[in-house]
Amino acid sequence: VNKSVHQIVLGVFALTVALTTVCTAFAAEPKPEEEVRYRQSVFNVIGRNFSVLGAIAKGERPFDQALAQKSANIVEALSTLPFGSFGPGTDIGTHKSDPKIWKENAKFKEAAEKFQFEAAKLPAAAKDLDTLKLQVGAVGKTCKACHDDYRVKDKK
Amino acid sequence: VNKSVHQIVLGVFALTVALTTVCTAFAAEPKPEEEVRYRQSVFNVIGRNFSVLGAIAKGERPFDQALAQKSANIVEALSTLPFGSFGPGTDIGTHKSDPKIWKENAKFKEAAEKFQFEAAKLPAAAKDLDTLKLQVGAVGKTCKACHDDYRVKDKK
Repeated sequence: VNKSVHQIVLGVFALTVALTTVCTAFAAEPKPEEEVRYRQSVFNVIGRNFSVLGAIAKGERPFDQALAQKSANIVEALSTLPFGSFGPGTDIGTHKSDPKIWKENAKFKEAAEKFQFEAAKLPAAAKDLDTLKLQVGAVGKTCKACHDDYRVKDKK
Repeated sequence: VNKSVHQIVLGVFALTVALTTVCTAFAAEPKPEEEVRYRQSVFNVIGRNFSVLGAIAKGERPFDQALAQKSANIVEALSTLPFGSFGPGTDIGTHKSDPKIWKENAKFKEAAEKFQFEAAKLPAAAKDLDTLKLQVGAVGKTCKACHDDYRVKDKK
């Protein structure tokens, strides 16, 4: 039995090697343009899911606990991801990242950590509406602070 | 005490209303071009995180359980998101979605559900390396099936 289990594991491993290439465009070190796209993707997904929580907090949407939980979990799970993709050389292409990000990186990191700190509390806060409202406000404040300082404004 | 708590809640609620607009670009019904961008963003984040699991499964990266867990949780959490953004009218702009998605939507949905079904098992599978390898193979198979049928190939 042990031998055949071992063979199955080996066979599946070979299959894994063959198949994972399909979903793994980034197995090598990501290029700067991939980093830009990645952090933009993460922020886009965070923004969409946080907007669900924002609409619930504002009373524009009914409080659906399962939906709030799912959205909160996603914002929390993604909250640390973008900030690994602001490394040297990633100030290229089309983006709204302020050059200050690379010049005063320690301060930017601090602003990012404030967001992560508040986002980490969202999943627990999604259990009831009053707590969620408070925490959506706390997270929103960290979004705004970082956008004010480190995101280039859209031209009017 | 009750009254002041009530006042705090009201005050924070007003703040919430003011602040959540910052992170909530999508409070209204998303436009078709936003849907295209959103599903691409989600797939990008799924791809990057699944690639971490792929590299671990292939032995290209050491098995770091915390990292595997985080990546698996993200793939699972995002697995249902993209498929809500293939609605009518979202076959626009620059994308690799095959027109079949809109013509044979039930079959596409079936392929999407196979991915979601296998992705849902990733968080538990990330507990140990052998189980993870098997599940990365199973998920990768569903990625490949859907890409083969519903993703336009890059021109060589």
